[in-house]
Amino acid sequence: MPQTKILLDESDIPTHWYNVVADMPNKPAPPLGPDGKPIGPEALTAIFPMALIEQEVSAERWIPIPEPVREAYRMYRPSPLFRAHKLEAALGTPAKIYYKYEGVSPAGSHKVNTSIAQAYYNAQAGIKRLATETGAGQWGCSLALAGQMFGIDVRVYMVKVSYNQKPYRRSMMQTWGAEVFASPTPNTVSGRKILELDPESNGSLGIAISEAVEEAANRPDTNYALGSVLNHVCHHQTVIGLEAKKQFEKVGEYPDMVFACCGGGSNFAGTAFPFLADKAAGVAKAQNTRLIAAEPTSCPTLTKGHYAYDFGDAVGLTPLMLMYTLGHDFMPPGIHAGGLRYHGDSPLVSQLYHEKLIEAVAVPQVATFEAGVAFARAEGIIPAPESCHAIRACLDEALRCKETGEPKVLFFNLSGHGHFDMSSYDRYFSGQLEDYAYPEHEIEAALHRLPKVGT
Amino acid sequence: MPQTKILLDESDIPTHWYNVVADMPNKPAPPLGPDGKPIGPEALTAIFPMALIEQEVSAERWIPIPEPVREAYRMYRPSPLFRAHKLEAALGTPAKIYYKYEGVSPAGSHKVNTSIAQAYYNAQAGIKRLATETGAGQWGCSLALAGQMFGIDVRVYMVKVSYNQKPYRRSMMQTWGAEVFASPTPNTVSGRKILELDPESNGSLGIAISEAVEEAANRPDTNYALGSVLNHVCHHQTVIGLEAKKQFEKVGEYPDMVFACCGGGSNFAGTAFPFLADKAAGVAKAQNTRLIAAEPTSCPTLTKGHYAYDFGDAVGLTPLMLMYTLGHDFMPPGIHAGGLRYHGDSPLVSQLYHEKLIEAVAVPQVATFEAGVAFARAEGIIPAPESCHAIRACLDEALRCKETGEPKVLFFNLSGHGHFDMSSYDRYFSGQLEDYAYPEHEIEAALHRLPKVGT
Repeated sequence: MPQTKILLDESDIPTHWYNVVADMPNKPAPPLGPDGKPIGPEALTAIFPMALIEQEVSAERWIPIPEPVREAYRMYRPSPLFRAHKLEAALGTPAKIYYKYEGVSPAGSHKVNTSIAQAYYNAQAGIKRLATETGAGQWGCSLALAGQMFGIDVRVYMVKVSYNQKPYRRSMMQTWGAEVFASPTPNTVSGRKILELDPESNGSLGIAISEAVEEAANRPDTNYALGSVLNHVCHHQTVIGLEAKKQFEKVGEYPDMVFACCGGGSNFAGTAFPFLADKAAGVAKAQNTRLIAAEPTSCPTLTKGHYAYDFGDAVGLTPLMLMYTLGHDFMPPGIHAGGLRYHGDSPLVSQLYHEKLIEAVAVPQVATFEAGVAFARAEGIIPAPESCHAIRACLDEALRCKETGEPKVLFFNLSGHGHFDMSSYDRYFSGQLEDYAYPEHEIEAALHRLPKVGT
Repeated sequence: MPQTKILLDESDIPTHWYNVVADMPNKPAPPLGPDGKPIGPEALTAIFPMALIEQEVSAERWIPIPEPVREAYRMYRPSPLFRAHKLEAALGTPAKIYYKYEGVSPAGSHKVNTSIAQAYYNAQAGIKRLATETGAGQWGCSLALAGQMFGIDVRVYMVKVSYNQKPYRRSMMQTWGAEVFASPTPNTVSGRKILELDPESNGSLGIAISEAVEEAANRPDTNYALGSVLNHVCHHQTVIGLEAKKQFEKVGEYPDMVFACCGGGSNFAGTAFPFLADKAAGVAKAQNTRLIAAEPTSCPTLTKGHYAYDFGDAVGLTPLMLMYTLGHDFMPPGIHAGGLRYHGDSPLVSQLYHEKLIEAVAVPQVATFEAGVAFARAEGIIPAPESCHAIRACLDEALRCKETGEPKVLFFNLSGHGHFDMSSYDRYFSGQLEDYAYPEHEIEAALHRLPKVGT
């Protein structure tokens, strides 16, 4: 009988992260300061340890993973690759569907891959506290767990709408010893500014980032940690794709299409970039492999956004980055995939998309839950609403294969489980979920509010 | 570096369940009918398929696991055995601590090991619907998942206090297509009887069992499925201990002490019985291994209950079983380990305890959460409140080893994760949890209400 789970040994945990910069046809556009001039690494030392800043600007193809980080990865890595036999049968598709399952991490998502690395480097640098933001709570949980492992106090600014929708993510962070605040808070200048404009503000990831960055910048013992977007975060996530390639090797397959959901971009980067390495290295079977980022129609950053310099946060504290953006003042609708509501996208993912090395698709909310339920009923695992976007995109392709009879090998990353998202499933079952396409005129209008620097 | 996870291949999934009856010094006491006479297998055909009834009365040491059941197990089995390096370091104990993690099943606990088997045999027998009860929701989720896999409709009577405390367990069952009712319900004679006495009844596992059994007995297309207590359920769970033994063999160790939480008894049975097989077979290293059931002081069935014939349900619909019991009309306090609130215990576990082949310990609620949080902070995984009882008992032994310097090998089964129990953790952190020892006089009084048959 064919295997269901393709497992690796702990000795197969990658020894290096992959840095896609080494294989990009054009070098990444530099981040800019408030004066519109490229900033150097030194501008980031107030909030990041030097080891991470070096990774942020590195052009080395392979970045060694420190042994204590690999040891911490052993808690849950290598993660399993599943062959979705039952889902294939349920769909009646000739396609072969594989998924890697990152929900095996104690915090329940892929985010732990980078939180462990970030906590480790900060601890090495003598940092005692980390401030961060969280949307759906997956990143906050991941950093709380990692902080606990490396003896760092973690303070989490949690987007208020999620703080209220997902109290159990908050409890989970507290179980791992973190402090959690509903953002916007009166703790920071940024938070107070937002609250003055709208005391009932639901918050946004951009606002929460402003608060955490401000706290880190103002306290020498405190650094900042970001769960996506930045280059070093994308590098750390490549353990997903690197392991997956070894697992495909074990079963003698190679994916024709790779799917991952895309909010800030690190989940997609971690899943897909290692396949770009094969393309760049001239691996024959990799040349036609398509890499597809799945995002919500309600926050269609790649598929509808502007490719322009913009701030990473809502208030304008971060350097300017060249990326696809809906405008840093974008206020996302309260969709249930909280991790996909960010206004921008990783500069690396953005540039590769701009240069047509990767693709993107936007999927509507109700269809993603429909796919998630079909997946859960066939494969057992209840997926996170974010992951349902990748499942939807993959299912659509599997159904196309059914029409054409093509036995394509489809691969998606199941970035997390939905155990803390059951209220969203409840709303889906009761017919209360709505589809929402972010309006074209709002996107058009945002163009005029972008910072007037760079191009 | 020593391994953290000891993994097995899918081919290592056991091919047979272990039946402890073959190795018991005295054969199990028979269940009795309402007339006080032993009942035969035919009395159970209204609610169970013949294959399960045969397992219930079997004395064969090894029961073959059907290939479709083994295939379904591949979703999550073999489950990992972890060496708790970080917990050992945090405690500063010379003991070596190992735990098997059953929370990897999609429903989040060991219960899936038997729900898959039960759904399979019922489907083979042409049954279209299964009725069952659930306390904390773990069993209901497990049967919902298994029913979905084998094309059976599942109807779950969920103890009302849990239905209200754990709405997301309900959503999870619905995601897998099950119907869920807050028990007591007006659907059944049993439910109406309880509601007449107390319209505000919080329910109990015993009441919910009555409702599900009644529904199954009255509909030819419907059978009943029980998540613990019965012999066949104990057999199915032995995949836990059987795999663990293979895993210990891989690292060249053998446990000195085995811990598992004990409510209805199947989790303990599945974890511990395979080590009794080694004792019975004369395996030298097994002779001094101690097997310890951990139960709550608020429901101290083994440590304080009566060894007597009693009903399995609250109303008196089931056969009488010789077991440790607090009385079938026992109303448990609303402690957070919902899966450990059952008034009785597996007849097999009870008899082995009565004959001193296994041991039991009762632990108070607050101390179990304290242990669970210490575990989560060291090992990452947030344990279910039920599992925290085993962790507490194991931690106490690890701390004793610290005093004596003994490098004992301690093993416990982490029967499930706590993702749906975060509100209980919240109450622990806010100091709202209380300890409760079930009063001696209540136990004494229950003796006089036991059915007057057998001894």
